[in-house]
Amino acid sequence: MHGLMQDRPLSLPMLMDGLENRFSRKHVTTTQLNGTVSASYGDVAERIRRLAGVLDRLDVPAGARVGTFGWNSQRHLELYMAVPCTGRVLHTLNHRLFTEDLAYIVDDAADDVLFVDRSLLDVVRPLLDTCPSVRHVIVMDDGSPAQPPSDPRVHDYEFLLAAARPVERFRIDDERTAAALCYTSGTTGRPKGVLYDHRSIVLHAMTLLMADTFAIGENDTVMPIVPMFHVNAWGLPYAALMSGANLVMPGPVTAPERLVRSMETHKVTFAAAVATVWRGMLPHVEGADLSALRRAVSGGGGLPVSLSRAFHDKTGLPLTSSWGMTETSPLVCSARIPSEQAPSLTEDDRITALADPGPPTVLCSLRLVAEDGSLAPHDGRHRGELQVAGPTVAAAYFGSRADASAFTEDGWLRTGDVATIDPRGVVRIVDRIKDLIKSGGEWISSVELENEIMAMPDVLEAAVIAVPDEKWGERPLACVVPVPESGLTAESVRRHLSGRVAKWWIPERVVLLDRLPKTASGKFAKAALRRSMTGAKS
Amino acid sequence: MHGLMQDRPLSLPMLMDGLENRFSRKHVTTTQLNGTVSASYGDVAERIRRLAGVLDRLDVPAGARVGTFGWNSQRHLELYMAVPCTGRVLHTLNHRLFTEDLAYIVDDAADDVLFVDRSLLDVVRPLLDTCPSVRHVIVMDDGSPAQPPSDPRVHDYEFLLAAARPVERFRIDDERTAAALCYTSGTTGRPKGVLYDHRSIVLHAMTLLMADTFAIGENDTVMPIVPMFHVNAWGLPYAALMSGANLVMPGPVTAPERLVRSMETHKVTFAAAVATVWRGMLPHVEGADLSALRRAVSGGGGLPVSLSRAFHDKTGLPLTSSWGMTETSPLVCSARIPSEQAPSLTEDDRITALADPGPPTVLCSLRLVAEDGSLAPHDGRHRGELQVAGPTVAAAYFGSRADASAFTEDGWLRTGDVATIDPRGVVRIVDRIKDLIKSGGEWISSVELENEIMAMPDVLEAAVIAVPDEKWGERPLACVVPVPESGLTAESVRRHLSGRVAKWWIPERVVLLDRLPKTASGKFAKAALRRSMTGAKS
Repeated sequence: MHGLMQDRPLSLPMLMDGLENRFSRKHVTTTQLNGTVSASYGDVAERIRRLAGVLDRLDVPAGARVGTFGWNSQRHLELYMAVPCTGRVLHTLNHRLFTEDLAYIVDDAADDVLFVDRSLLDVVRPLLDTCPSVRHVIVMDDGSPAQPPSDPRVHDYEFLLAAARPVERFRIDDERTAAALCYTSGTTGRPKGVLYDHRSIVLHAMTLLMADTFAIGENDTVMPIVPMFHVNAWGLPYAALMSGANLVMPGPVTAPERLVRSMETHKVTFAAAVATVWRGMLPHVEGADLSALRRAVSGGGGLPVSLSRAFHDKTGLPLTSSWGMTETSPLVCSARIPSEQAPSLTEDDRITALADPGPPTVLCSLRLVAEDGSLAPHDGRHRGELQVAGPTVAAAYFGSRADASAFTEDGWLRTGDVATIDPRGVVRIVDRIKDLIKSGGEWISSVELENEIMAMPDVLEAAVIAVPDEKWGERPLACVVPVPESGLTAESVRRHLSGRVAKWWIPERVVLLDRLPKTASGKFAKAALRRSMTGAKS
Repeated sequence: MHGLMQDRPLSLPMLMDGLENRFSRKHVTTTQLNGTVSASYGDVAERIRRLAGVLDRLDVPAGARVGTFGWNSQRHLELYMAVPCTGRVLHTLNHRLFTEDLAYIVDDAADDVLFVDRSLLDVVRPLLDTCPSVRHVIVMDDGSPAQPPSDPRVHDYEFLLAAARPVERFRIDDERTAAALCYTSGTTGRPKGVLYDHRSIVLHAMTLLMADTFAIGENDTVMPIVPMFHVNAWGLPYAALMSGANLVMPGPVTAPERLVRSMETHKVTFAAAVATVWRGMLPHVEGADLSALRRAVSGGGGLPVSLSRAFHDKTGLPLTSSWGMTETSPLVCSARIPSEQAPSLTEDDRITALADPGPPTVLCSLRLVAEDGSLAPHDGRHRGELQVAGPTVAAAYFGSRADASAFTEDGWLRTGDVATIDPRGVVRIVDRIKDLIKSGGEWISSVELENEIMAMPDVLEAAVIAVPDEKWGERPLACVVPVPESGLTAESVRRHLSGRVAKWWIPERVVLLDRLPKTASGKFAKAALRRSMTGAKS
């Protein structure tokens, strides 16, 4: 027997009601190269309807991919809505990728049109000749002086918008309609596309509003420092539009001191970035008035406790960890301390606990699969590969060249991370499966070694990789970036580790470097490190 | 084009993962007539699986209705899960209804089995002969000495549970599968059934976890004082199980002083009841330690500001209003103050603002329809009938005798309430359409008059009804229950109103009564009042 409730799809057009009615006076503020612009959600809604008219005018078919090369900005926000609300697919692209990767992705997605911020034109220029699917390029003026190429396919965003007829009614009847496409920035292998639907995006945004995840509400001012091409900026733009929170967009101005100043000026209450960006902001936090800030989320990779402690020392607020993947919308876990434990924790215990990914959102189921395929218990000690299921988790990759090995036969996503889960659901990531070091038949966690090394005041960054060893199979090798002129030595690193980790975990080789290679999303590029340290191919 | 996310239904079996894993040590505490019992969610989950086995053993078909006559208790919570998780339909019944209404409802729903608390056996006894659909009656021992009838259809809950085989896997493939059935306790007309599905119940519970609605989280202890037969106790049991909050269930012990003591003893953080119950608890709040309480929600009818102010005087916490109907799961609006207004409000302004229903949840769309059928603007001044749409709102009534007049042709629910909506989405209920008084061609709001009268310290309760008038068409008549021995007179009521409402609003007739008739859900029974005051049929 079926229930008799209204058949209303969970779809992005739902959010228009809030923008046009109760949140019409809330606003998005964008830093551009030539100053700051602000617009009310009421005006943004009107522009979204015009932008929808532009897409109609350009004859972008239903289901076609609309590529974006954009900083975090109001116009990118307008694309976040207008594209999926009209049945097209928003395809955000990471402009930091190599041209050959971008050409592969635009081709794989068969992007019909591209929207590009003026300061990123140089990234798009080479694609115009190599990507035949692209019929139009629409340039968004972010204050850069770069000159658009003289090409009949190139248009100006504001010019098109001014001439467009607003679309009055958005209608997505089937909530499983594709809405957005993101490619993983895999450290190895070809990028893989994840195709979100309206349902998964709406459900994901709902979880971000919950008290036990990010608790985003109408009185927040949300600053997604994480780029809008990085898994939909972790869903924060949609969560802000759904709840009526103000948005602060850093635009192309990503210098750490400018980010901190923006947080201060706009009284940001909620900000999110990867750990390396927080690390860069740290020196500029001192003396800044961040008293409005209630939560600073770190994601997209491990959060070193030492970084969170340093942030806490300067602001009174720890960083809080989170965990997810492109394949999971992305939020699966967000740090919080279960009520049973909270009363017994010191402030430093709290900082440490909040550096773990924490328990899952209400829509995600987790399991740990041991090496022999059995389920590992959730006792906080047994390890296994973390596998995830839920309506916000991918079932397959997009595209004809898609790889199915990431999905189990019973429909769970293999995350490739080794983790423990405690009886209260708190997840701790032990390592990436491929970054674990197997030495003398026992596992060594590169993540734990990195955290211990990064806790040294004289260390800026550290990455630990496996190197082949005749006797032990593999041994850890630590690549460490010292604070300039600190006098850090390999021996002082090894001495620091002594007593903090098991003796046989201590790397024989500690290499001091000026910098570490990073992936386009800011993670340590361990595959590249391994290649340069061992000469081996990965 | 379809997205490629996992096809995981929004269904109640999702909640089992939390109960059995991360929340297994959280608990539900029930007050019975013979003492207090507590059980961990881990144990409750095991009992839910056994109870599912009982339903199989009794051959209750898929989709069949399972009626419950129960207080708020752990066993009722087990039924809330086991019945829908196995594809049957939970049908909660209000034992305060007249026997003839109950017989009508059990017959209309064609209940297959009934679960009944021992103290409520007398309510069920007459139904055994008149309701042929009922094959089994299962008695739950709440500490009452009442003797079950000697009838082969009667069984003991714990006896069946002990003998049952636990069902290992719950599976609801289609989230639109019917899950629960509630009948409206209409003040006029026959009760009408609303058939919720798994999707609507899960989505509704998700909204209760959001920061801007009830913000229910794992560190809460939730006490649903509102009965579990009253629109699923406003969804609070499901919200608590979803978030891992503890539950405190008052059981059959509903004396106001006992409720307050329970809140104190169990450090309740969140409690919800109708205004008349909060009014009853008020004298007992003085001196009680309710410091753990962070939110006290009033719903199921208007919240007089005077009541909230009195509660605030004693506890430091105002009551917060909410608005919904059986047809809306029920939560549509929950009181909160938009951020733009918050800084300028005094404490008393805040109390007054939180007595309004507030803005809608993220899943509900609202509109106001004027008398001429046009849409009224959301400017806080124009009035219209409040209409609601969303996936948590009914599309039709259950049963062959269902009435479709409550639903518009374009699929919105007519609420029967006249309201205003301000530009920030805050809803104010002006009156029920049928309780508005039309005097000399102008509308008088009975709700506003009642609130003004109930603000008098010497007034316990007040209801204002329309009476026919030769000159004006209708005039208001106020029925007032004075505080005993307060010396309140009709003239002092009229004097109090003078200057507070328009002169022509002041009722010529103020009748002092010992008590007001109430409906089974605690609202003023205005239809009955009108009958007794005017002799007219309603």
